[in-house]
Amino acid sequence: MHYFDWTATTPISESALEVYANISRAFPGNPSSTHTLGLEAKNRLEEERKRIASLLNVSPSTIFFTSGGTESDSIVLSSLLHTLTPGTVLSSAIEHSAVLEYKNILQEKSWKFITLRCPGGYLDPQTVSEALTPEVRMLCIMSVNNVTGTIQNLKEIVSVVRSYSKQTARPVHIHCDAVQSIGKIPFDISSLDIDSCAISAHKFFGPRGAGILYNRNKSLLPLSKGGGQEKGLRGGTENLPGICAMGKALEEALSSINENYKKVSNYRNMIEKTVLESGFTVLSPFSGSTKEYSPYILNISVKPLPSEVFLRIMNDKGFCLSAGSACSTNSRGKAESVLEAMQIKSQDRMSSIRISICAKNTEEEVVSLCEAIKQTAKEFK
Amino acid sequence: MHYFDWTATTPISESALEVYANISRAFPGNPSSTHTLGLEAKNRLEEERKRIASLLNVSPSTIFFTSGGTESDSIVLSSLLHTLTPGTVLSSAIEHSAVLEYKNILQEKSWKFITLRCPGGYLDPQTVSEALTPEVRMLCIMSVNNVTGTIQNLKEIVSVVRSYSKQTARPVHIHCDAVQSIGKIPFDISSLDIDSCAISAHKFFGPRGAGILYNRNKSLLPLSKGGGQEKGLRGGTENLPGICAMGKALEEALSSINENYKKVSNYRNMIEKTVLESGFTVLSPFSGSTKEYSPYILNISVKPLPSEVFLRIMNDKGFCLSAGSACSTNSRGKAESVLEAMQIKSQDRMSSIRISICAKNTEEEVVSLCEAIKQTAKEFK
Repeated sequence: MHYFDWTATTPISESALEVYANISRAFPGNPSSTHTLGLEAKNRLEEERKRIASLLNVSPSTIFFTSGGTESDSIVLSSLLHTLTPGTVLSSAIEHSAVLEYKNILQEKSWKFITLRCPGGYLDPQTVSEALTPEVRMLCIMSVNNVTGTIQNLKEIVSVVRSYSKQTARPVHIHCDAVQSIGKIPFDISSLDIDSCAISAHKFFGPRGAGILYNRNKSLLPLSKGGGQEKGLRGGTENLPGICAMGKALEEALSSINENYKKVSNYRNMIEKTVLESGFTVLSPFSGSTKEYSPYILNISVKPLPSEVFLRIMNDKGFCLSAGSACSTNSRGKAESVLEAMQIKSQDRMSSIRISICAKNTEEEVVSLCEAIKQTAKEFK
Repeated sequence: MHYFDWTATTPISESALEVYANISRAFPGNPSSTHTLGLEAKNRLEEERKRIASLLNVSPSTIFFTSGGTESDSIVLSSLLHTLTPGTVLSSAIEHSAVLEYKNILQEKSWKFITLRCPGGYLDPQTVSEALTPEVRMLCIMSVNNVTGTIQNLKEIVSVVRSYSKQTARPVHIHCDAVQSIGKIPFDISSLDIDSCAISAHKFFGPRGAGILYNRNKSLLPLSKGGGQEKGLRGGTENLPGICAMGKALEEALSSINENYKKVSNYRNMIEKTVLESGFTVLSPFSGSTKEYSPYILNISVKPLPSEVFLRIMNDKGFCLSAGSACSTNSRGKAESVLEAMQIKSQDRMSSIRISICAKNTEEEVVSLCEAIKQTAKEFK
């Protein structure tokens, strides 16, 4: 099978897998134990925290290890349940379900959870500005959208929020889901001036079950401390082999980020050209658009074919594509609702296909994908 | 180092590690993706769910994969936050911090969280009976206590609760932390008639970052569904390599449960004898006690030596022991408070040492541990 669904998951790299096995064998202790084997594990954990922090250009004290992106989002959002007087959360309408699922939960607890419209897949800083009220405690805004690849103008959005806070003396926690950014596009947490962000290892050839919560907000109180690990922000015995394997994968992803970006951009252009020539529609921003987008994700509409039909045809031809976010197949209609929030027409939403690319794809694979798209258009359109 | 802290964690077995690597390579897809690679991963996931369910003698529909014991406990307890009218939670006072940490959270939300006294480390069914009121929605009761190894009389406790529910038509969810039981003592979930239980892989030579929530309560609503995985009970991409490695480790643990139990019981008797001969005190039940206990954990008091001093001496002699639960070193005093709830005297609490044993320990190791205990008693007592 030719894999073009790297946004859903990536396999763990051989070198990360090797680290997983080596660390499993070399550090059998629980980092919370005070004997030699415990201390050795603890030291290795803190060494990895420093290494990862340095790769991300942040302080080690802001790095908290979790079981993945969903949990990282969850820690931040569920912390609001501690607050005695409910307030307002602003969220882009195109966030991952890990964030949007908190809408009902927070509303049950008398919070306002306002989803901000994102025409074309972009949250306008002006929309944020208009939504800011003294009740707003948090803004959730992803970096790269996982369905279409649009990149939010975080710099301007953050600046709007910070100016408001300065004028009103009302702090707003800015949380960013950076799952589809890390290791793919330049993403400098520190200079972005966000308070927290979610990172998932299995999106950059790290292991499943490992992730990072970057958090610089010292007053963030988790729902439960559990055993008090990760300075009380995330309980449970630390997954040291997974964490070190994640560090290895992160190092590799960042070391080749520029060359991968160029290669993937080239692939995207080839596919986009084919899609247009085949009479299909591009739903992601066009190549060379002045709006920012990640070349790793290309969303197209294959109307009049429904997504499912096109996916099946392509799967039979040996290509793994997706109709939206993998996480949304469990709760039908989520990817569609993201596209709706982007104000994409109903017919295109029903025919939407996500092609996600990676530098590990060969040019031959991309060429044969393009041929398969053309052929399918000829046969079924 | 001679390891006698198996209750804190166990290293992943070589065969489980092999499964981890094989599954990582063979199933690169996301189980939520609908293409061939996704479906293959999904099928493997469901196959493993069936295998694990069969090993645990429960229905596959009751098995939910999580990142570990703490998360399994958390899903059950945080689900209460959905309830519109707060009620009462009963909990033994000697639960793991993954459970007890919910006391503050639930109290903040107007719940009553009543911790029931456990003299000697046992929750008396009569105490439960007296605490039952129409407001009680949940009872949290662990199987094997992680600090002293006492085994709760789950059968009678559950029976008391079920009788009450029958009489009053008030259902009570019974949640059991079975982290220290699975793979060590006979633990038949189905015949116990509990509603949910928490299981952690790294306590039986499985990987870190993998666990199970057994749950047969169809109305249990998780705080957040995230991406909707695990029928909405636990969001986040499934850690398939970790889950399959856990299955392998579980299979191995259960296949040798009886012979391991005998071997460990023998070790425990040797150590207990030495402890008493050395003039130290046994805080766990004595060998042959009519009260049930797990031979895997032996808690002793080395008074007048403070725990820390004894641990350091033993560590220098090459033995890894613990002062309580590893999870409690992050939030000082937790193990001590468990011992206090057991009504163990202050001086013994300050001198408490947890020796945890495993069939992987050799008899030579146990003999040298005994010699080291004797020697330390001679030198410092």
